[in-house]
Amino acid sequence: MSTESATNGSSRRDELLAVAAKLFAARGYHGTRMDDVADAVGLNKATVYHYYASKSLILWDIYKRTADFTVDALHDDPTATARETIYHFTRRLLTGIAHDLEAAAVYFQEGPYISEWFTEEQVAYIRQAESTVYEHVRDVIDRGIASGEFYDCDSHVLALGYIGMTLGAYRWLRPHGRRTAQEIAVEFSTALLRGLIRDEAVRIQEPLGGAQK
Amino acid sequence: MSTESATNGSSRRDELLAVAAKLFAARGYHGTRMDDVADAVGLNKATVYHYYASKSLILWDIYKRTADFTVDALHDDPTATARETIYHFTRRLLTGIAHDLEAAAVYFQEGPYISEWFTEEQVAYIRQAESTVYEHVRDVIDRGIASGEFYDCDSHVLALGYIGMTLGAYRWLRPHGRRTAQEIAVEFSTALLRGLIRDEAVRIQEPLGGAQK
Repeated sequence: MSTESATNGSSRRDELLAVAAKLFAARGYHGTRMDDVADAVGLNKATVYHYYASKSLILWDIYKRTADFTVDALHDDPTATARETIYHFTRRLLTGIAHDLEAAAVYFQEGPYISEWFTEEQVAYIRQAESTVYEHVRDVIDRGIASGEFYDCDSHVLALGYIGMTLGAYRWLRPHGRRTAQEIAVEFSTALLRGLIRDEAVRIQEPLGGAQK
Repeated sequence: MSTESATNGSSRRDELLAVAAKLFAARGYHGTRMDDVADAVGLNKATVYHYYASKSLILWDIYKRTADFTVDALHDDPTATARETIYHFTRRLLTGIAHDLEAAAVYFQEGPYISEWFTEEQVAYIRQAESTVYEHVRDVIDRGIASGEFYDCDSHVLALGYIGMTLGAYRWLRPHGRRTAQEIAVEFSTALLRGLIRDEAVRIQEPLGGAQK
């Protein structure tokens, strides 16, 4: 296979994935047939099956990419303050969600039912990624509490609240909305971090840490 | 119809609704048939149709109750501070969600697809309820900004973040979890409100207002 046809194959596959994500987001995975995907992308069903041997493999590709992106967005600079770490994570997450809203919608909308479509190994992979994200946020809050940077609080509950607030933004975030993902990250992080930071001067002057905006 | 048979009819209908909500939450509305509902509740399908002439009317009942509950949970005491209003709303909402997790799950999971199942009037009713909730939260934040109680912030973005954090708790809130809904409301409200309140003494001493806990 030449480089050119490999590139075409890859972009065709990406196009197919984007169209399927749009359909799954609008009608649900259960309510979308492979025929609908083939029609929407303008290919015959045999060609669609050449790229994806089953509908669940399309869903898996959307799921795995979204889970991997979220884990990769974790900010792991151990020299950063807890507030900087949370701000950077929020910014990367919201920017990523805005960049592929359909994938985020499919990920969250189908979440309760994935054990119906995925193998046990696939479900375990996703659950592991979600645990990693939750634990990372909780651990950053705990780090801030331990160092005296943050007030004492229930890091478990606040990590879950943070995830709901940030990842739930796929419901209303729009790439050309009146606020960019970056601006929303600043608003969310400022409100949450001002609520956690103990030191009055830090709280007022740089709630997002030194790398602000 | 005697009072007794009316009561039985009503409790039978409630039981049917609870069973259907459980099935819809686990398998999705699209993936649940009326036969499944009849089997799970131990009635024949004709009896189920006596209570609900269609599957979409069951979904509508779940939807309308949840939307009405959420609107009713709005705290409308005009003498309360913005922080008290937000705290009370959070407490009522989380307590309500914990009380009927399946209904909350169905509401959020089916949200993207309701125009497929509901009439235009039904969809408009739900959209109106959701706008009322969003506008109420936004207006309370704006009231706090205008009075100097809160920092200046983007009340639109924070209202959406608040709704994602609070209503999204159906994903992990458990009636017998290690934190009660009431405790989670205190954690969420304390973190968010400490982030909004300008006055240092209020912020430290009573971020939830006078009626704290």
